[in-house]
Amino acid sequence: MMMRIIFLLSLLFALSNASVQDFCVANLKRAETPAGYPCIRPMHVKASDFVFSGLGTPGNTTNIISAAVTPGFVGQFPGLNGLGLSTARLDLAPKGVIPMHTHPGASEVLFVLDGYITAGFISSANAVYVQTLKPGQVMVFPQGLLHFQINQGKAKAAAFVTFSSANPGLQILNSALFANNLPTDLIVGTTFLDATTVKKLKGVLGGTG
Amino acid sequence: MMMRIIFLLSLLFALSNASVQDFCVANLKRAETPAGYPCIRPMHVKASDFVFSGLGTPGNTTNIISAAVTPGFVGQFPGLNGLGLSTARLDLAPKGVIPMHTHPGASEVLFVLDGYITAGFISSANAVYVQTLKPGQVMVFPQGLLHFQINQGKAKAAAFVTFSSANPGLQILNSALFANNLPTDLIVGTTFLDATTVKKLKGVLGGTG
Amino acid sequence: MMMRIIFLLSLLFALSNASVQDFCVANLKRAETPAGYPCIRPMHVKASDFVFSGLGTPGNTTNIISAAVTPGFVGQFPGLNGLGLSTARLDLAPKGVIPMHTHPGASEVLFVLDGYITAGFISSANAVYVQTLKPGQVMVFPQGLLHFQINQGKAKAAAFVTFSSANPGLQILNSALFANNLPTDLIVGTTFLDATTVKKLKGVLGGTG
Amino acid sequence: MMMRIIFLLSLLFALSNASVQDFCVANLKRAETPAGYPCIRPMHVKASDFVFSGLGTPGNTTNIISAAVTPGFVGQFPGLNGLGLSTARLDLAPKGVIPMHTHPGASEVLFVLDGYITAGFISSANAVYVQTLKPGQVMVFPQGLLHFQINQGKAKAAAFVTFSSANPGLQILNSALFANNLPTDLIVGTTFLDATTVKKLKGVLGGTG
Amino acid sequence: MMMRIIFLLSLLFALSNASVQDFCVANLKRAETPAGYPCIRPMHVKASDFVFSGLGTPGNTTNIISAAVTPGFVGQFPGLNGLGLSTARLDLAPKGVIPMHTHPGASEVLFVLDGYITAGFISSANAVYVQTLKPGQVMVFPQGLLHFQINQGKAKAAAFVTFSSANPGLQILNSALFANNLPTDLIVGTTFLDATTVKKLKGVLGGTG
Amino acid sequence: MMMRIIFLLSLLFALSNASVQDFCVANLKRAETPAGYPCIRPMHVKASDFVFSGLGTPGNTTNIISAAVTPGFVGQFPGLNGLGLSTARLDLAPKGVIPMHTHPGASEVLFVLDGYITAGFISSANAVYVQTLKPGQVMVFPQGLLHFQINQGKAKAAAFVTFSSANPGLQILNSALFANNLPTDLIVGTTFLDATTVKKLKGVLGGTG
Repeated sequence: MMMRIIFLLSLLFALSNASVQDFCVANLKRAETPAGYPCIRPMHVKASDFVFSGLGTPGNTTNIISAAVTPGFVGQFPGLNGLGLSTARLDLAPKGVIPMHTHPGASEVLFVLDGYITAGFISSANAVYVQTLKPGQVMVFPQGLLHFQINQGKAKAAAFVTFSSANPGLQILNSALFANNLPTDLIVGTTFLDATTVKKLKGVLGGTG
Repeated sequence: MMMRIIFLLSLLFALSNASVQDFCVANLKRAETPAGYPCIRPMHVKASDFVFSGLGTPGNTTNIISAAVTPGFVGQFPGLNGLGLSTARLDLAPKGVIPMHTHPGASEVLFVLDGYITAGFISSANAVYVQTLKPGQVMVFPQGLLHFQINQGKAKAAAFVTFSSANPGLQILNSALFANNLPTDLIVGTTFLDATTVKKLKGVLGGTG
Repeated sequence: MMMRIIFLLSLLFALSNASVQDFCVANLKRAETPAGYPCIRPMHVKASDFVFSGLGTPGNTTNIISAAVTPGFVGQFPGLNGLGLSTARLDLAPKGVIPMHTHPGASEVLFVLDGYITAGFISSANAVYVQTLKPGQVMVFPQGLLHFQINQGKAKAAAFVTFSSANPGLQILNSALFANNLPTDLIVGTTFLDATTVKKLKGVLGGTG
Repeated sequence: MMMRIIFLLSLLFALSNASVQDFCVANLKRAETPAGYPCIRPMHVKASDFVFSGLGTPGNTTNIISAAVTPGFVGQFPGLNGLGLSTARLDLAPKGVIPMHTHPGASEVLFVLDGYITAGFISSANAVYVQTLKPGQVMVFPQGLLHFQINQGKAKAAAFVTFSSANPGLQILNSALFANNLPTDLIVGTTFLDATTVKKLKGVLGGTG
Repeated sequence: MMMRIIFLLSLLFALSNASVQDFCVANLKRAETPAGYPCIRPMHVKASDFVFSGLGTPGNTTNIISAAVTPGFVGQFPGLNGLGLSTARLDLAPKGVIPMHTHPGASEVLFVLDGYITAGFISSANAVYVQTLKPGQVMVFPQGLLHFQINQGKAKAAAFVTFSSANPGLQILNSALFANNLPTDLIVGTTFLDATTVKKLKGVLGGTG
Repeated sequence: MMMRIIFLLSLLFALSNASVQDFCVANLKRAETPAGYPCIRPMHVKASDFVFSGLGTPGNTTNIISAAVTPGFVGQFPGLNGLGLSTARLDLAPKGVIPMHTHPGASEVLFVLDGYITAGFISSANAVYVQTLKPGQVMVFPQGLLHFQINQGKAKAAAFVTFSSANPGLQILNSALFANNLPTDLIVGTTFLDATTVKKLKGVLGGTG
């Protein structure tokens, strides 16, 4: 019996110089690479590194969109690094809306936790795919396409979402267009909106130029 | 104004011979390839192809493990094909257990919907990472590693899980060892279990040989 | 000497049952898969399958945007299938614009052939990166981000662009929002544009609903 | 002629600021990333970095499993870093066994060098694929599935194995279950083994809890 | 106990509509895709599909190069399809040579079975990495680079090689240049060899033009 | 209205700890990884990092090959890092030639800017694909295969090329064989060229040994 123990320890020893990481908990203090963050050393990894508690409570929806997005991406949840997945929670008060947006680097699945969510995306071929989802239903949004979620019901709604990358990105259309210094003439020229509309939205969203 | 319409239609026309699929809803009647199923034609794709309703109701847990796994993989949810994601629902009555298993082709994130779930995985370096999760907590299980979920609480528990592949696979340890025709002497030889234990479990799980 | 010939023929013969395709010219008549189209048989592949002649002449810019996009994606250029690249040509008359758009599945490099092109993209962090490019300059647009090209000069401009996928997709913001049947109330709700603006643009772009 | 030399040197010079590494010999002192280790500088790379000599002699099989696994992963063989391959050697005395195990991150091919090896794997669909291999035969084990190798012959056996990743991982079932601090009640609960069997195996394999 | 059986059967049943292939044995009669061949149906897969016996005997080296390459690529070994690996055997009589060649789609590891093999590759930076290997030594050749193997010893030599793709390709320099109809003037122009040398080698290797 | 601003700022704040890079401008001073260079911090990224101006002027073709290759790889154009694309410019005076070469890590598309370019590649199956291209035509060269470009016209020619990797590599056949210290006997043995030819070319190209 003792020999069996010795065998197994020696087997492990044989591997002790090897790279035996099956995961790569992110060291967020180090510079990213195209494949993600460098890993912390396995000896410093704890079970809690693989758990994220930030999605358990509803985000604050007392704002103009009556909605909140709470991300659990690699920046909040370093245990995801290199594993090709990330998470978020959506909360929508009645009439709440997650405005039209894309995730440049990932597809998304959405699982409705509470309430009714009308969700949709638009394809490259310009086709519209909209569905009103009830609790327990799942919808998938293919990578990079414009999509939105809106609560047209009378009760609050919530969803858990997962992405096919630890760093999916999030580009909110209105913020991209009207909440930075992109010059008004370029916006007008590239969107066919009129300058008055653009300036009004810049005013609302904090854009300049 | 009319010209603008003409432009856009012509632009679309220019692309009309192109492959403009941003998704690839599976044609399950056709043979798979290593990258997934062939796509149905875009003209036949409906919004409902991107929605899966099979996870909205608890699975039946009146069985010996007091638990159920309801998959939403590409076979059940063809809209996932090629998008690098799949889904499932876990239901665990009190004392319910999802037995030790692996997903050979994917990492997993688990979001607790109800109850308390004690979940864990074991790394290649033989380290154990176990946590008891409450509703709203998320845990990630790196690809291919042995893991389990168990309900040690007094109320039923449920979780929504997502995988980093449309076809993650599911290898349940006990079924793999004791529910097929793998010869008893090979099991004994490769697991160090004694033949009596193996035969007893084969009896329970339906294995032969 | 004769033996040398025999060797080489026999070596080739040894490989004759093998899959010796280094390319996979698309059979566009067959259903796509997530990795691209099935290949035509190597014996039917001709040198001209690897050449595309559709980008040699300027697209017609006598339209409301004074611009044209001519694609050389896998649909037009089947030799690209599986090789991770595709092409297009942009033509912009003075004041011409390629409206705000994304490519959901690819990054892009643009090489200016003629004239001056003001190009830009907006990041997930909402930062704006705009540059005015002269002939011979190259700009890269990271995958999935909103970007545009506009000719603010007095002469016509043209560019050759390449994508990091045989099927990059092309989602034109205005067409996605205003040239289909996406209901006006959903557009208003998810973009903060007012209904009057939305309806006006739908009128221009052919949208309904 | 001199001009030709000058041309080629200048061509190389033009590339001298470029990244011209076709390989990435691991700097094992630096933190890993999800894609592997950072590279040592090309000027420090030697031909011997691409050679590994650790598999030339049989591993010591005078242990309870009468077998040895000698790895040539990126930790032992840094030249493999980033190249998508790694290696190992198996030695099995008569009755020797490489116990049931998985490689979470790679498929494997095994080439029998000497003796007879009975090898098998079990699929997600619970099917068993077992074959007894003779010298020169090759068997492939798909990624992440439980598999084993056993010497049922009368002479010693050996094999050279290759993996489809520089860091395939190695999870030995018995070590994962019985050689660490995974609590006995969790093992019992998730494997259907009885506590007596679990404790006995923990005793043998050094497990606690 | 009966219930436990029922559970497991029902669990399997729940998955029975799912895609539960962890492998994709090639149907060589169907057209390839960029990711490999379509799979045969799991019910038709046999254990022997994962075994290849073609590398067990030395190739015939009674030819002008005194060497033989025996491939075990997806065309010969359909079980490899989609698994990212392939195999081959090299045999070299004394003075035998595997001429300068590349694998356009894969890196390679070589394990010396018998004899001494002098092997080398040349990098993009024009550096030469040559080593003389003895039995049991392993060498890795990075993807796409020119490399060769030669037997400078007095005894025959053999090696088992593995590639990081099921379809690595094999481009033998001399065959590529001199065994087809590539016009002599193009060869002269692009290699700086003189026409006399080119024509002589075409004569030897069967080239025309 | 103020609330809307507050919402959006708070949304951005929620993401402020996240990794929101959609790109990864290379920090060339840091060690590479298999996936590319570490990124510079987003706050230091400028619009000009995404622009490369090195291809706007013809390379110097007053050399023995009457041609020039000007690379815009990650080393010259750090904004490409991680985006799966790189660029170059070819200039060929009359009779100019880009000698037979491979890119070990990328496929290539070539867009003819000026003049006539005869280009070709050779497949693993030894087939020759040659075409003479005029301005505006595009040709694709599959990854890793030997190919060349030659100007058989009377006017100078130029092309813009793009690769499917930020670091495609470039192995020029003649330099690989004759411009380093690869021993003459190994070259003779592995190419079937005679020693006189090899030595002559080594003399021309600066090789030793």
